[in-house]
Amino acid sequence: MKNYFKVDEWKIIEEGFDPEYNKVAESVFSLGNGRMGQRANFEEAYSGETLQGNYVAGVYYPDKTRVGWWKNGYPEYFAKVLNAANWIAIDVKIGDEQLDLAKCEIIDFRRELNMKEGYLSRNMAVRTASGKELRVESTRFCSIVDDEAGAIAYTVTAFNFDGVITLTTFIDGDIANADANYDEKFWDEVSKQVNGDSGVLQLRTKKTGFEVATAMKVSVLQGGYPINFSANPVRKEKYIGLEIKINATRNQPVTLFKYAANLSSQNYEKQELSAKALDTVERVSEKGFAIMLKEQAEAWAEKWKHNDILIEGDAAAQQGIRFNIFQLNQTYTGEDDRLNIGPKGFTGEKYGGSTYWDTEAYCVPFYLATAEQKVSRNLLLYRYKQLGKAIENAQLLGFKNGAALYPMVTMDGIECHNEWEITFEEIHRNGAIAYAMFNYVRYTGDEQYLTDYGLEVLIAISRFWAQRVNWSAQKELYVMLGVTGPNEYENNVNNNWYTSTIAVWCLKYTLDVIEKVKAKDASKYAELAARINFDEQAETDKFKDIIAKMYLPYDDELQIFLQQDGFLDKEQTLVKDLPESERPLVKKWSWDRILRSPFIKQADVLQGLYFFEDDYDLETIRRNYDYYEPRTVHESSLSPCVHSILAAKLGDVDRAYEFYLRTSRLDIDDYNDDTEDGCHITSMAGTWMSVVQGFGGMRVKNGQLLFNPLLPPKWNAFSFHIGFRGVLLNIKVSKEAVAITNTSDRDIEVSVYDGRYFIKANSEEVIKK
Amino acid sequence: MKNYFKVDEWKIIEEGFDPEYNKVAESVFSLGNGRMGQRANFEEAYSGETLQGNYVAGVYYPDKTRVGWWKNGYPEYFAKVLNAANWIAIDVKIGDEQLDLAKCEIIDFRRELNMKEGYLSRNMAVRTASGKELRVESTRFCSIVDDEAGAIAYTVTAFNFDGVITLTTFIDGDIANADANYDEKFWDEVSKQVNGDSGVLQLRTKKTGFEVATAMKVSVLQGGYPINFSANPVRKEKYIGLEIKINATRNQPVTLFKYAANLSSQNYEKQELSAKALDTVERVSEKGFAIMLKEQAEAWAEKWKHNDILIEGDAAAQQGIRFNIFQLNQTYTGEDDRLNIGPKGFTGEKYGGSTYWDTEAYCVPFYLATAEQKVSRNLLLYRYKQLGKAIENAQLLGFKNGAALYPMVTMDGIECHNEWEITFEEIHRNGAIAYAMFNYVRYTGDEQYLTDYGLEVLIAISRFWAQRVNWSAQKELYVMLGVTGPNEYENNVNNNWYTSTIAVWCLKYTLDVIEKVKAKDASKYAELAARINFDEQAETDKFKDIIAKMYLPYDDELQIFLQQDGFLDKEQTLVKDLPESERPLVKKWSWDRILRSPFIKQADVLQGLYFFEDDYDLETIRRNYDYYEPRTVHESSLSPCVHSILAAKLGDVDRAYEFYLRTSRLDIDDYNDDTEDGCHITSMAGTWMSVVQGFGGMRVKNGQLLFNPLLPPKWNAFSFHIGFRGVLLNIKVSKEAVAITNTSDRDIEVSVYDGRYFIKANSEEVIKK
Repeated sequence: MKNYFKVDEWKIIEEGFDPEYNKVAESVFSLGNGRMGQRANFEEAYSGETLQGNYVAGVYYPDKTRVGWWKNGYPEYFAKVLNAANWIAIDVKIGDEQLDLAKCEIIDFRRELNMKEGYLSRNMAVRTASGKELRVESTRFCSIVDDEAGAIAYTVTAFNFDGVITLTTFIDGDIANADANYDEKFWDEVSKQVNGDSGVLQLRTKKTGFEVATAMKVSVLQGGYPINFSANPVRKEKYIGLEIKINATRNQPVTLFKYAANLSSQNYEKQELSAKALDTVERVSEKGFAIMLKEQAEAWAEKWKHNDILIEGDAAAQQGIRFNIFQLNQTYTGEDDRLNIGPKGFTGEKYGGSTYWDTEAYCVPFYLATAEQKVSRNLLLYRYKQLGKAIENAQLLGFKNGAALYPMVTMDGIECHNEWEITFEEIHRNGAIAYAMFNYVRYTGDEQYLTDYGLEVLIAISRFWAQRVNWSAQKELYVMLGVTGPNEYENNVNNNWYTSTIAVWCLKYTLDVIEKVKAKDASKYAELAARINFDEQAETDKFKDIIAKMYLPYDDELQIFLQQDGFLDKEQTLVKDLPESERPLVKKWSWDRILRSPFIKQADVLQGLYFFEDDYDLETIRRNYDYYEPRTVHESSLSPCVHSILAAKLGDVDRAYEFYLRTSRLDIDDYNDDTEDGCHITSMAGTWMSVVQGFGGMRVKNGQLLFNPLLPPKWNAFSFHIGFRGVLLNIKVSKEAVAITNTSDRDIEVSVYDGRYFIKANSEEVIKK
Repeated sequence: MKNYFKVDEWKIIEEGFDPEYNKVAESVFSLGNGRMGQRANFEEAYSGETLQGNYVAGVYYPDKTRVGWWKNGYPEYFAKVLNAANWIAIDVKIGDEQLDLAKCEIIDFRRELNMKEGYLSRNMAVRTASGKELRVESTRFCSIVDDEAGAIAYTVTAFNFDGVITLTTFIDGDIANADANYDEKFWDEVSKQVNGDSGVLQLRTKKTGFEVATAMKVSVLQGGYPINFSANPVRKEKYIGLEIKINATRNQPVTLFKYAANLSSQNYEKQELSAKALDTVERVSEKGFAIMLKEQAEAWAEKWKHNDILIEGDAAAQQGIRFNIFQLNQTYTGEDDRLNIGPKGFTGEKYGGSTYWDTEAYCVPFYLATAEQKVSRNLLLYRYKQLGKAIENAQLLGFKNGAALYPMVTMDGIECHNEWEITFEEIHRNGAIAYAMFNYVRYTGDEQYLTDYGLEVLIAISRFWAQRVNWSAQKELYVMLGVTGPNEYENNVNNNWYTSTIAVWCLKYTLDVIEKVKAKDASKYAELAARINFDEQAETDKFKDIIAKMYLPYDDELQIFLQQDGFLDKEQTLVKDLPESERPLVKKWSWDRILRSPFIKQADVLQGLYFFEDDYDLETIRRNYDYYEPRTVHESSLSPCVHSILAAKLGDVDRAYEFYLRTSRLDIDDYNDDTEDGCHITSMAGTWMSVVQGFGGMRVKNGQLLFNPLLPPKWNAFSFHIGFRGVLLNIKVSKEAVAITNTSDRDIEVSVYDGRYFIKANSEEVIKK
């Protein structure tokens, strides 16, 4: 699989077509604008292997829970990403022969994802079964300027024939979900209309009752000039089409422009949805394809100005990081606090709901540094708004008094995952949600957030921890039984060090924030305490007692934190002893063997040391890294980035680089053989972190930025952009120097290595190494 | 629910009909003969709540595995008990009005299960919607003399009308399975014929390809005399019927005799199945209903002679134990070593496959003492024959070199359970299979079994244990990680004392048997060792090393064995502290709460002390009992009996009696609110054990029977029958004495309390207390 796509600094390029990789290419070439997203399915019919996917943000369906043996606490239905109406479809008929790449001889084929300007293009020449030769060129994008719209320019040129070409452009709502448990279809038709050059189809989801109107409008060029055409409307159940017959002459290109819009009832009244969708396609079609595409390129240029990471001397690494940043920007824009970042974004439907702890642990740092403050704030507010459901979720499991357990996976606050050892036990996610708040306030200085929203969430989370621990009469300490840590290759363990550590941290942070909020706005605090029945004295006493007496497993001999009780009972083999043929373990080994083995899926103790690095000296981090990394198989896409950052911190630039490459080209190189299901969107933020926090060594302490850069030997230089409290910086690390350019109108003081530098507005500071 | 059925020493009686309890009654009144079984569904149509069930032993369907997240090691399909063609059906029409109890007024209703003679009868008078009054009497049984046949006498008497009554007797193969995952139907029609007074329908199961021919033959009496009738044959897809119109006159009973047979392709060539089934109904109908019923009563009398337990002065306890013995005899006769004992027997389809560790741990002792030796031997052979599949199952999980892991649940040797924490981790079942062999040889003295079959199984099981443990460098002992003990309210624990103890015992027993077999038949041993590549020196050295260095958790302070590592970290609350409203925990608590709690589903450490009581002094047993019993919620039907036996051993007759009542009337009183799914067949053997091993204090040591009887104060006396190495004994325990009657032609020496008694053939010994 590796090297299927060509290396290019700004593009992903596919030369020649290999049907075996089509689903991978569909994922990698996905387009999105935060509001809607589309896999790189072909416009025309394709009878080969494909995974159709058009997703409208925030619109989901309720799938029936499927488990082996039911356990109390599972919801009966849960929300999953929904495949919506297919809006890109253009059926092509040459005479009576349908164009279908799976049935043609391919003369040439090239597909490019232009990440710089945000569009996908395809150019191919084919010979049909009957011998007709033609070229198809298509360019399409999901507009980030008009974020409910997409546009396609689809050009067919006959080479060796004249005759009628029938282009049927349609919207099809009768689509299935590959990830559905019961093969049901989840859309019902509400209404449709199609006439002249446009049409709209309005559908409603079963049970959840979302409505989406998908509209289209078309125009046609022939030989470069607009032509009048008459389209024959086609109406079927959950389907509208416009059939256009063109008398084609050889070498004279015929271009169909298709403007489409997806409007959701989350944003409009249901009864006006169809009309608004038609308005939208009308409006964008008046701009026209060329202007839309130009606006798209300009808007992407603006994004790249704040986002881009430049790597000199290593094109594969450069392509990798840009692909990651590109996909993150396609997935989430932060405009809407009801939305979040699914592990597959708009590139696939796997993994059910949209929100994991990935958002807080991996994505928030990316958006904090590369987007407006409201973007990460909206990610925090998303959880705030779901606090009520998190409390209900905890009640379902037997917790009381406003304790909250956020779901492992969710779309709307309700749990979407149903394995007891994860759903009920992988509770460290609660900690990541608190940590993201801490991270946000540390980065932005926005303490008001804590007063207005944060403290309420923190108290609910701390109440959960206070009830989740129990007193061990034997240890004379609090213990945390029956948990699953980030390393999901251990289930239902006792005293997972990471979980217990983040629980204690949450309690401490909550106490700290209580004091801050009280000092800042006593009446608001009193109002909150009354509303949530917070018995400050009794509850904070309990929090303090747990902080003081929490059991955190440690091995005196190895001087490391123990991942959990009994970890040292395991057979002490290392990853390097594993034959390649037995990897990945999750595909080659039975589950019980994985569980009993010492092998770690992803950073666990090390995740804690990454989060709370200031609480541990470098030697402690090194000992734990040296112990746990050789036991880690990195079978989660979230694993290499944390290891890369820690390796960089420990000065091991080679290992840091190795982990970086693995994370940044995960999907382009289909490293885990699963990109066909969609891209690993959330781990892409981890890739960004491994450059900025790893090689860049960026941290925030006491409201100031710190950098401790390290340059991988293979690179001549690298640079990245950072926004920090109204200041925009570009940091360039070369062999000789660290150059920091302040492109904003505010001065800033930063630390680089051990020195402090005052960088004036609109000026540059070059720090020689 | 309690007291729905009337107490009677030989019958289960239902007076009046309560539709709410119909499914419970259907379970309790189930009939079976080891070869086929039938829930107490009504013959005539019934539109109320019912669970149809006719089961043919050994015939199963492959259901699709349904799990939340797939784990390596799960089979794609697995075998489940199959609902077969309905052979009891007799549709009754009075004029155009269909008889349906759910739509009639009930004048009187009585149903009786006659356990003494082995039949079910029903007598009811009803008034139909149109005001017609009639009486229906039905008697039916599954013959234990002709064990592929059943017979029904169905009598209708008109009270207040004359007119045509249409009796349509039919066989319907278009039936569903309530426990199917995908609501599929699993039978296809092979052939059918129906003519004159008889018919046969042959069906084939999907995928598994079993064929079953179900035949019927009918005759009719009117006013007590046989009449000629002409039956109109009815043929539909998977259905045959005979429609018989009778001109009924008031007060003149019309009796339809329906003889049926279920023949399976396991026992006959497929192409002769239908003919043989017709032969069978022909043959039994020639005997006639009355003679068949008489033979049935005689055969049951013979069974009771060897099986019956008499309890004087406590009719509820008497009814309870007889019901248990009756159902056990209906479920399994030991005639066929391909069959086994499902947890629901022939009374329901729940729990998938037919064979659990219940068979070895609970049922073998019952059949050892109450049936011919071949019965328990066949239960052992069942596992021997599935050894190959148990080795394959272990290979699937990564074990090598002929290690065997028997499935948790099976029909044909393939695993039928799919929860990783059970399927892959509840491995103590392997120990129970070895223990049953030990138990069998101890009881019967049949050491040849070990040479011929047993040792091969033991080595395979020991190889599994030897690979399943690992060396803990920290403990400098072998540990057993990631297991689930009998207490399924703990999952994936480390060093479950019971599992580790039975593993060590298996290794010891295997070494012991190796020596015995070598001494007895060196060449056979050599042949076996060569065939299974048994490297005696290396492998037994490893076994010995594990025996010597196995870690078995123990608490020095409490002086108890620890159920598993970390058990004392749990919150130390007791069952008596649990509010009644929170029980049963499995219905009221979330799974994670159950797992973290100290509450125990069923005997775990205590199961080990029960199995290996000779290895522990009484005070050790008492300390562990006193610690664990108060933490046990007995939410498995298998729990109370073991506790009853241990309580009796510890001299606590009141607790022993309390546990006994709970186990013996579990289904009659619908104790766990789940009898509607079927009866708890395997735990019935535990009930028997709690009388014989508990109150009777029966043990076998050094080839001799020992008794240590204890009489519950509520009882005047109790007695039970035992077969032991060709000797038949009746042991009667009264307030004054223990009377042992030897009804066989062989002398025997037994121990009673501390004395030894020589009991001559055909004589009685009365030992005054």
